[in-house]
Amino acid sequence: MGKNSTPWIQTVSLETPSLKDNTADAERLIQALRSRLNTPAIKIDLDLLKALPTVLRHSRFNVRCVLFKEKQHWVLIGITDAKETPRIAGLAIDLGTTRVVLRLLDLATGATLAESAFDNPQEKIGPDILARIHFAEKENGLRELNERIVSGLNSAIAHLCKSQQLEPEHIYALAVAGNTTMTHLFMGLNPRWIIREPYIPAVNAPGAVKADALGLQVHPRARVLIFPNIGSYFGGDLIAGILYSGIHHNAQTGILVDVGTNAEVVLGNENWLIACAGAAGPALEGGVTRMGMTAGPGVIDQIGVNPNTLEFNIHTIEDLPPKGICGSGVIDLAAQLFLTGMIDIRGKLVPAVCASKIREIDSLLHLIVVPAAKAATGSDLTISQADLDSLIRSKAAMYTILETITASVGVAPQDLESFYVAGTFGSFINPASAITIGMLPDLPLDRYKPLGNSSLRGAALALQSDKYHDEIDQIRGRITYLELNVNQDFMNRFSAAKFLPHTNTSLFPSVKLSNKRKL
Amino acid sequence: MGKNSTPWIQTVSLETPSLKDNTADAERLIQALRSRLNTPAIKIDLDLLKALPTVLRHSRFNVRCVLFKEKQHWVLIGITDAKETPRIAGLAIDLGTTRVVLRLLDLATGATLAESAFDNPQEKIGPDILARIHFAEKENGLRELNERIVSGLNSAIAHLCKSQQLEPEHIYALAVAGNTTMTHLFMGLNPRWIIREPYIPAVNAPGAVKADALGLQVHPRARVLIFPNIGSYFGGDLIAGILYSGIHHNAQTGILVDVGTNAEVVLGNENWLIACAGAAGPALEGGVTRMGMTAGPGVIDQIGVNPNTLEFNIHTIEDLPPKGICGSGVIDLAAQLFLTGMIDIRGKLVPAVCASKIREIDSLLHLIVVPAAKAATGSDLTISQADLDSLIRSKAAMYTILETITASVGVAPQDLESFYVAGTFGSFINPASAITIGMLPDLPLDRYKPLGNSSLRGAALALQSDKYHDEIDQIRGRITYLELNVNQDFMNRFSAAKFLPHTNTSLFPSVKLSNKRKL
Repeated sequence: MGKNSTPWIQTVSLETPSLKDNTADAERLIQALRSRLNTPAIKIDLDLLKALPTVLRHSRFNVRCVLFKEKQHWVLIGITDAKETPRIAGLAIDLGTTRVVLRLLDLATGATLAESAFDNPQEKIGPDILARIHFAEKENGLRELNERIVSGLNSAIAHLCKSQQLEPEHIYALAVAGNTTMTHLFMGLNPRWIIREPYIPAVNAPGAVKADALGLQVHPRARVLIFPNIGSYFGGDLIAGILYSGIHHNAQTGILVDVGTNAEVVLGNENWLIACAGAAGPALEGGVTRMGMTAGPGVIDQIGVNPNTLEFNIHTIEDLPPKGICGSGVIDLAAQLFLTGMIDIRGKLVPAVCASKIREIDSLLHLIVVPAAKAATGSDLTISQADLDSLIRSKAAMYTILETITASVGVAPQDLESFYVAGTFGSFINPASAITIGMLPDLPLDRYKPLGNSSLRGAALALQSDKYHDEIDQIRGRITYLELNVNQDFMNRFSAAKFLPHTNTSLFPSVKLSNKRKL
Repeated sequence: MGKNSTPWIQTVSLETPSLKDNTADAERLIQALRSRLNTPAIKIDLDLLKALPTVLRHSRFNVRCVLFKEKQHWVLIGITDAKETPRIAGLAIDLGTTRVVLRLLDLATGATLAESAFDNPQEKIGPDILARIHFAEKENGLRELNERIVSGLNSAIAHLCKSQQLEPEHIYALAVAGNTTMTHLFMGLNPRWIIREPYIPAVNAPGAVKADALGLQVHPRARVLIFPNIGSYFGGDLIAGILYSGIHHNAQTGILVDVGTNAEVVLGNENWLIACAGAAGPALEGGVTRMGMTAGPGVIDQIGVNPNTLEFNIHTIEDLPPKGICGSGVIDLAAQLFLTGMIDIRGKLVPAVCASKIREIDSLLHLIVVPAAKAATGSDLTISQADLDSLIRSKAAMYTILETITASVGVAPQDLESFYVAGTFGSFINPASAITIGMLPDLPLDRYKPLGNSSLRGAALALQSDKYHDEIDQIRGRITYLELNVNQDFMNRFSAAKFLPHTNTSLFPSVKLSNKRKL
């Protein structure tokens, strides 16, 4: 196997059958592949077996095989004359609750061909997991949810393939990473008991499933590796994230935080992994992602405040006139407001400092970030006290979860050697700002490692080599799931974290107030 | 597991899920079954996974599972509330070239419920394997052959089930034993290279295949264990025969002879097995089964000759007026003719002894076995010199094959401890008569063990326990296939065996000529 080549495509020359060696076609091929792949078992689907004798003889026993790994064995998916080099593609899917992202790969080399994304068509039924699970309980509800995601995928696949002059039938292997509920809805499995105590999924480790059984319009014999979950609140997207981060290979303890619809956290190293999902408890009600709008053209993603003039220095995506603020922008803004004294340590707007920037609307204080004249919307772009209060709760919850999980194994947040931030939100966040407001621990900035869409990237890894399939199983087997116990300890920590950056400022030595504030 | 129960039906009570044990439904069930079945891997089809959460909860986690074994893993086929006891059936199939036999079983106990048989509907296309393989090469030929056998099976299954107040959907597991070509035609595999040097099947060991992929109208998730072959001329029917005979468990060397369309022979013991198929070489052209007509009502299956009066004492099946002679009758007849001197040691009719029983028709001598007046046909029932010549060639070929295979491992035919005779033909044959004509070696009669339809019975064993699945693989792995080399040695042996009982009469000490002959 050369460099940059996956094990999925194997070109083999078989010994021509003779009276001395009358092994059948299937077993002859399997023997040759077995020594290549170091596996005891290779399965051939009946319909491929039907084509096998002719292909072997037309190719004079020199064939190119497409293979994939199922749980206990490999499976032969396609076979052609070795002289033919049809394009063979793979597809990694990040099956998000709100957004679905696809990456088309060359299955022989693992190289990325193209990516695309679409809004999860289940959103029209329910914006979140809870609403969809309730809908699934109606007559034909599950079927409709399933059909929506599957047909959404099928049209996205068709478009993506077309952009690369490929046919969907050229896709022979897929890997899908999603949270536990999305995975269930995608497979057509009843999600009812995911949200009901004691929160039991239908399946933890579905393994590889035939694409046609899932309704996917790709090669009918294509296999779909579905990432396993640890439970109802720790899904395959997180396993994919861990796989991509490599945290499970590190000698020193690190942490991975995925700030998606929930905040999920994994702590560990090459020896152990502890996970918890932040959906537990009332602290995170509203979620971390309720901060600001979804990132997009014209959305403010970075904000600076001149500490002397208190003027805002905004950056918008694609440098268009501003129409709103996304999460990373809100965190930047809050950090700057705090440093300049425009909000106090409780996150409350300080009218005396904000001066003319403040408005009271419906008896609620608002801070004008962009005046109407400069905004794309034609009206003032503001952040309200309620937005800030919500941010404080979210950041406090985040920090409390980090503190709780690290405390559970006797590690201080400050001792973490690596801090992986997953999710698109995590990629845009400015760690310095997040530290300033006490959302993330005060680590040297180079320990923060944004992973981008680690669910998609982990899924793509599973299409690079079978060794990642084994790693997925190992990760799943090694994780201890920590049920977040929202007890008095947790609530005490939460209360302390509701200040900027924290009641215990010694935890945040790098947070330096500006001159203006100190005055 | 109690007595007379198979491993396929398992009733399990699962630990009810709790916050302390949030294992998913599928893995919870698999864990419980795994310890029962002593297997690392149990698969659940997607459509059953969809039903699983509801069934588990309706049954309060007390369920009855139907399982079967695939190659590397077990598979869950069905699941119900433990309180329900639906009927669960298995079906063993002997997939003969001319006749197909079915045995319906209770899959929980392995007990036989009913049997039926039908003529292979492919016979209308071609009476033998060769004709069918040639037909399969025509456009849609393979499809027609496949559809004929599959629809023949489907109607037989429907009838058989009806007779037991069962639905075909109650059949969850099947085992099919047939020769290599029949197995290929049944699976829709191209048989073209089976009859072309170097005689390569498409597959040796198909394992378990889903019934619906084969077009069988039984439970859609039912699995079909297809018996493996050793090569083009040693099929799954023979493996099933070996399994049923138990020859592979014996300390002392025995032999198994299946006299079907070809004569196939297996020699061995618990340590080794050697097989050869008698289709090789011109000696067996015409085959052993060309002797006489197919057994049926009114057919002579036993004949005695009064050594003093030379009168025939015939027995017909169901004691009806005679209409013909079947194979076992022909062997009886030849033995009696030889003992009484009506034929000589070359098998030639001796007119002087046969006297008025002889007729010359178209310049060919015929012996009248039943005169027209007593025959169901209204005309003389005769055996011709050509019939006798053909019998001599067949019996000589049979003995030569036995001598050759035993000689290849240094065993004399006379040293065989067990002599299993498989096939319906083998069940009716009178070993004493076969010894008299030198077709079978001169062993004490109690060493001859008719196995009946050992293909069907072996298939039925595969539905009793997974241990037989392992045995099937072991048998296949242990067999050395001996290509019959029709060299000068073989031809010399063949020439010697073309006499009655043999040129070397010391090989047949028990063959005693009657007084009449000795005179």
